[in-house]
Amino acid sequence: MKLVRYGDTGAERPGLIDPEGVLRDLSDHVTDINASVLGDAALARLRALDPSALPAVNGSPRLGPVVGDIGKFLCIGLNYSDHAAETGAAIPEHPILFFKANSAIVGANDDVVMPRGSTHTDWEVELGVVIGTAAKYVSEDEALNHVAGYCIVNDVSERHFQTQLTGQWTKGKSCDTFGPTGPYLVTRDEIADPQALDMSLDVNGKRMQTGNTATMIFTVAQIISHLSQLMTLHPGDVITTGTPPGVGMGMKPEPVYLKPGDVMELEISGLGKQRQTVRQDA
Amino acid sequence: MKLVRYGDTGAERPGLIDPEGVLRDLSDHVTDINASVLGDAALARLRALDPSALPAVNGSPRLGPVVGDIGKFLCIGLNYSDHAAETGAAIPEHPILFFKANSAIVGANDDVVMPRGSTHTDWEVELGVVIGTAAKYVSEDEALNHVAGYCIVNDVSERHFQTQLTGQWTKGKSCDTFGPTGPYLVTRDEIADPQALDMSLDVNGKRMQTGNTATMIFTVAQIISHLSQLMTLHPGDVITTGTPPGVGMGMKPEPVYLKPGDVMELEISGLGKQRQTVRQDA
Repeated sequence: MKLVRYGDTGAERPGLIDPEGVLRDLSDHVTDINASVLGDAALARLRALDPSALPAVNGSPRLGPVVGDIGKFLCIGLNYSDHAAETGAAIPEHPILFFKANSAIVGANDDVVMPRGSTHTDWEVELGVVIGTAAKYVSEDEALNHVAGYCIVNDVSERHFQTQLTGQWTKGKSCDTFGPTGPYLVTRDEIADPQALDMSLDVNGKRMQTGNTATMIFTVAQIISHLSQLMTLHPGDVITTGTPPGVGMGMKPEPVYLKPGDVMELEISGLGKQRQTVRQDA
Repeated sequence: MKLVRYGDTGAERPGLIDPEGVLRDLSDHVTDINASVLGDAALARLRALDPSALPAVNGSPRLGPVVGDIGKFLCIGLNYSDHAAETGAAIPEHPILFFKANSAIVGANDDVVMPRGSTHTDWEVELGVVIGTAAKYVSEDEALNHVAGYCIVNDVSERHFQTQLTGQWTKGKSCDTFGPTGPYLVTRDEIADPQALDMSLDVNGKRMQTGNTATMIFTVAQIISHLSQLMTLHPGDVITTGTPPGVGMGMKPEPVYLKPGDVMELEISGLGKQRQTVRQDA
């Protein structure tokens, strides 16, 4: 299933994209796509519905973040060996963890707004993992059973804030709008192997990032197992799993950063596309 | 006002502690102590109630985290010059920011549970700041107007996870139960100067931390202003503002860490006391 949340910010309604690509409303069945509908049994109930019997939604409404009331937004850094190389960082021994503020989360096609004074805003196409059932001290073998599904995340990053403000990385990761998440939550039954997904990101029509989740240093299962040794992963938590090469800070002969009016387009196989226009706060 | 959330985990009810120290129920007036009641107008409506007319609560129920549905749990590191010295760290140029997982938040007197394998769990008494109204690009002069109130936070920290697992600090800060928050949300009208509060932490009756918020490197107003340049602070967000000297990792001749059965007692002037017993997951 491709689950969505559609409508204006803060007033999103639950829906799904049917096999013909038609957006259909799920409001008669669930109040939102949130922790309460991400477990296997709840998803099975939605899967048992006849999509053609659900109300079709007219027009092309905005698609919001794919999960409502996201609990925590966990991020893995430097998780592609070739991206680690382009940034000059060593291959980490364990998954590098930081958080994005959940207030940074927006829809897949919402504007990305550079904060006042930002001159180093950068892009990162990433595979997002939505937790479906609570995970604590789980093994790698069990880990993927706790996944509700997958989505695209753009881990937008202000590199100056990230590295020059004597904070931890999160300072450059948590700005409002720096977490486009969607457009769909694709349930895990539709993703045969999360480690075999092509991914790309274009800026103004020019290909910047090309990768495949096969080159992750730590797999999705390893990440979930590792994090679950540290804390409980709850339904509705989102883990974004790192980015392949091609970020602006790694460009040669010199870094390239976003500017107002730029357009980012992201794609991951099976998970759809994102498209954001860049603005900047005055 | 001293606002509280009382009752079992996940089923807390709103209440207040009246001037005589009696716990009284607020369920007839608000559904929870959360973002919706933290603005100045909503707090004024609660303040206008006659406490003696509210139902007294029998017994001594558990006190939960002081805010329901905490949005983000922002943490400032190395914010006391003498604590920075004991850890050997330089005085930061800007506030150091990291996040604790909001799933780490528990009540003031709930058990603190060391994760499996933890051998370096440590304590940190801190002044917590609860945001009442949204703050974005606010000046230092305006900053405190966005505060609903204050509380104690124990920023429990696993030092090995924090520094040895090739993550960012958050790995050692986000374990379940590592964020006791409360017992009260003391509204800001009762705290004449947040930079003049005595604070202490005892372990098994022995004084370990002694400090005063006067020695913060960055004041509460400076922290709020700085963070609001990076992201919107929303009602219900909690900022914990760093710890004074006396953490276990700074003990001489060698560090001291928590072990199962230890009891931590925390106090900040005007904000009450916390008491946690330490356990460990098998």
